[in-house]
Amino acid sequence: MDRIKARRIGVNMTGADTAAKDWNVLQYLQFEDERSRPSRDLLAQVRLRSARRVVDLGCGPGNSTELLVERFPEAKVMGVDASKEMLRWARERLPECVFLEANLVDWTPPEDTDLLFANAVLQWVPEHQSVMRRMLGGLAEGGVLAVQMPDNTREPSHRLMMEVAARRPWAETRALAGMARAELPDAESYYDQLKPLCRQVEIWHTVYEHVMDGPETIVEWFKGSSLRPFLAALDAAAGDQFLRAYGAEIARTYPRRVDGKTLLRFPRLFVVATR
Amino acid sequence: MDRIKARRIGVNMTGADTAAKDWNVLQYLQFEDERSRPSRDLLAQVRLRSARRVVDLGCGPGNSTELLVERFPEAKVMGVDASKEMLRWARERLPECVFLEANLVDWTPPEDTDLLFANAVLQWVPEHQSVMRRMLGGLAEGGVLAVQMPDNTREPSHRLMMEVAARRPWAETRALAGMARAELPDAESYYDQLKPLCRQVEIWHTVYEHVMDGPETIVEWFKGSSLRPFLAALDAAAGDQFLRAYGAEIARTYPRRVDGKTLLRFPRLFVVATR
Repeated sequence: MDRIKARRIGVNMTGADTAAKDWNVLQYLQFEDERSRPSRDLLAQVRLRSARRVVDLGCGPGNSTELLVERFPEAKVMGVDASKEMLRWARERLPECVFLEANLVDWTPPEDTDLLFANAVLQWVPEHQSVMRRMLGGLAEGGVLAVQMPDNTREPSHRLMMEVAARRPWAETRALAGMARAELPDAESYYDQLKPLCRQVEIWHTVYEHVMDGPETIVEWFKGSSLRPFLAALDAAAGDQFLRAYGAEIARTYPRRVDGKTLLRFPRLFVVATR
Repeated sequence: MDRIKARRIGVNMTGADTAAKDWNVLQYLQFEDERSRPSRDLLAQVRLRSARRVVDLGCGPGNSTELLVERFPEAKVMGVDASKEMLRWARERLPECVFLEANLVDWTPPEDTDLLFANAVLQWVPEHQSVMRRMLGGLAEGGVLAVQMPDNTREPSHRLMMEVAARRPWAETRALAGMARAELPDAESYYDQLKPLCRQVEIWHTVYEHVMDGPETIVEWFKGSSLRPFLAALDAAAGDQFLRAYGAEIARTYPRRVDGKTLLRFPRLFVVATR
């Protein structure tokens, strides 16, 4: 992350914080513009005119929280995340908001919540359809649960993680086998699960074609998200070897286009459920 | 179309116009809210702050033209369509705009055009990638070509039109065989064709899950668009028989959900190219 970007997102990179830099946060923020398009697309379909309280579920370093503050200046905006490190960055970025460390599996939103915004988080939560039902159950009439999740487990970018993990020597690292996220249920399943609790359930997928500088940039992108569990299970040298093998497959599968760039096809699921 | 909707879109349904009602226009407007979401989504990604002239290519009855007038109040907004009937409705809806009858294959936009907006039209234009290149060639630096096309030829809704058309007695109506639209090229192909002319090319697909009252509503929907060439090749009785056979297949393939509604999966391709 360069200093200009650091300034733009309000992060202090000098002094005490420099030492505490967390590569996951930096890695994640590296593609902030591309990663924020889905949250802007999700927010565009939330038709609330105003809100008493807005909760950003899985707020991360506060990118999406900032969008919510801009859109609902009258609301109490609150961020919830399980990562202390992410919350520290979020608090520095948005000192006027409340940020809370909690696990979404059993956390219950305050009663005056009008919007629950869950951008790119519920894919990590087991049985997330039950969590969505429970959260919706706590909203008053007219309250909205807005959800976006990557739905890219069938994409080459993900299949190749599994293919490489199945090779020697990684096949012997038993932990790797269970690292991939499960496939998301289909649109019909979300509709049938949520509609009995809701006045309206809108569902769509958007398949972004992100323009990347090259295949190696695709590897960089996933180092900040889906590759994390794989790398966490390996020591540094084994992790580098894994990344090289994965990178070679990515370069074969995502060729450069006419201008030398590479397109990263990235499907995402959106659900906007209104009580 | 009921009178309330007619009033909302500014169409005079009394007097001389009543006699001239064109079922295609009425059929098309029947799902106006669902059909306008894609043009709103497309417009949201056009980042021009202002425009001198905006052209709505394939303006139809003026739904998308109206969005353009709202978004660019300072611009000269112009609609172009090949259908006299559609243009008549558009002129009544937006008397302040200029509407022009022309074929996009050889029509050239005025020199001061800053935005060419082509919502749900280029899928009907043969060799439309060449048309896009030619149109882009006429834009000044910073000018935008924004395109949305249904990309649903691989969906059951379309495969079933072809399947029914291949049955007796319709298989003998030779015209039916050539009725289906060709598949769209993939995202990479649009990128490689347009990027050499452009500073930036953004591409994505959105797969809408339209909530329909039931399978029969899906048939109604396509009567206003993709079924039109099939029905035009048949007389009224044969057309009814075709619709009944198609409707039976649709009912089998698009089951009702928990609340009795049916989800119509509808993929669309979006391209926003900036000179």
